[in-house]
Amino acid sequence: MRNPAENAQLALLLEVTGTPKPGNVDRYRDYDDLRFEHFMAGSVGAFDGLCAAADGAPIGDAFERAVDGMADQSGGNTQFGALLCVVPLVRAAATERLTPEGVAKTVEQTTVEDACGFYRAFDHVDVAVDDPPDDLAALDVRRGRAAVETLLQRELTLYDVMDRSADRDGVAAEWTSRFERSFEAAGWLLDDDGPIYRRTSRVFLRLLAAEPDTFIITRNGRKAAAEATARARDVLAGTEDPEALAEEFVARDINPGTTADIIAAALFISLERGLVV
Amino acid sequence: MRNPAENAQLALLLEVTGTPKPGNVDRYRDYDDLRFEHFMAGSVGAFDGLCAAADGAPIGDAFERAVDGMADQSGGNTQFGALLCVVPLVRAAATERLTPEGVAKTVEQTTVEDACGFYRAFDHVDVAVDDPPDDLAALDVRRGRAAVETLLQRELTLYDVMDRSADRDGVAAEWTSRFERSFEAAGWLLDDDGPIYRRTSRVFLRLLAAEPDTFIITRNGRKAAAEATARARDVLAGTEDPEALAEEFVARDINPGTTADIIAAALFISLERGLVV
Repeated sequence: MRNPAENAQLALLLEVTGTPKPGNVDRYRDYDDLRFEHFMAGSVGAFDGLCAAADGAPIGDAFERAVDGMADQSGGNTQFGALLCVVPLVRAAATERLTPEGVAKTVEQTTVEDACGFYRAFDHVDVAVDDPPDDLAALDVRRGRAAVETLLQRELTLYDVMDRSADRDGVAAEWTSRFERSFEAAGWLLDDDGPIYRRTSRVFLRLLAAEPDTFIITRNGRKAAAEATARARDVLAGTEDPEALAEEFVARDINPGTTADIIAAALFISLERGLVV
Repeated sequence: MRNPAENAQLALLLEVTGTPKPGNVDRYRDYDDLRFEHFMAGSVGAFDGLCAAADGAPIGDAFERAVDGMADQSGGNTQFGALLCVVPLVRAAATERLTPEGVAKTVEQTTVEDACGFYRAFDHVDVAVDDPPDDLAALDVRRGRAAVETLLQRELTLYDVMDRSADRDGVAAEWTSRFERSFEAAGWLLDDDGPIYRRTSRVFLRLLAAEPDTFIITRNGRKAAAEATARARDVLAGTEDPEALAEEFVARDINPGTTADIIAAALFISLERGLVV
């Protein structure tokens, strides 16, 4: 029987394995500089931090350790957002409250120290993020640990930080909405059948069709995100070939990374709830 | 910096990712009941035993723990042979003697207790093996822990057990030959360049072209093993397409599993020696 940290590591591996996931690295597709093998190494490196999350370390410290280990490969950012989703879920599972209510309590109990850990994590890896609003410039995550003093002055918890980003970041939105999409997608995975790498693809397309991917908005703009959503709907309607779309989106560097992050969370929840591998 | 147990886990993941590896599960190919996702789960489950190997547990106990964890998925035997190669290499690396001489010492120092652990490991998973010679019937590995009394009576160490199988099992032959092929293939991986999943394929084909795969001999017979070797040579000579061969061998269930086991060992050694992922 796998423990929560092991299921979280397996969720990271199954996430990147799922194919086709148009625009993502998957079992069949690499970007030149960001390859499947980097995600394997990222999953190996993250495990130590996932164990810390299960063992009761502060969430921010556990997240920083997971990101630090994940970053020990040459592909850059592979699973930052996925870990930001999965770390509080691991803690919730390890404390026997892996429900929307239980996870909500877990994230609401985060502290200013947790926020500091989150900011320090940005020192380990380059993450694509938006410019913050002017009044939040001192809290630009790209400042990394340099922003810690501001966090302490303003007494912002990690939950507060997520709350301030929830309108423009799909992972932060999970933190402030009881991980609603993650739990819903976990149900889809459990209700489906067949090999998991195909279930993962189907659930990915449903999530992408339902909401614009905020990682695409950040990197490619709103128009590209709207196109990705529309074309995922076309795949679900049977009027677009997902394999061809996957080739096209990789060629155009349109990467629905936030949707992949939520898939990792959904896989973790479904493994904890009995998904058989 | 990954420790030896982490590099061993990554080696298992990179092994199954390498493609094309004609006849093996790989990044692009599954068998119906033995799929890529089972190898992912096997790699997650094996880690605890790999840590035990690094931390100084008896080799037989560490191997049994790794196999027990590996078997916690529905695909059956994914990495039994790979773990039998990798566990002593992890111990050697953790004690700073990951050289042919150092590994030879490590395996020669195994005990009767280690042999018992090896036999107990067969209770966790079905492994395809040959019938033993008549005088070794009491030591048929398929007897699992029922063979332990015989091991104790005859005072056979795990090295002794491997020595008795070395003429018909390619993994046992590594144990008794200073892991010669594993170290040689690690050099090939390090001397090559480009994505690791392609290097892995090239090294796999070189190993398969050089010697008949004993797992094919066990499951399909000597003629099939000779064919696999000949056709791997054709791939190296440029007269056979490796992708087509991979499709054909999966369809015919000709699986060079021992070659894959040695690839896992070679990947581990190359990671310890600086292979950059």
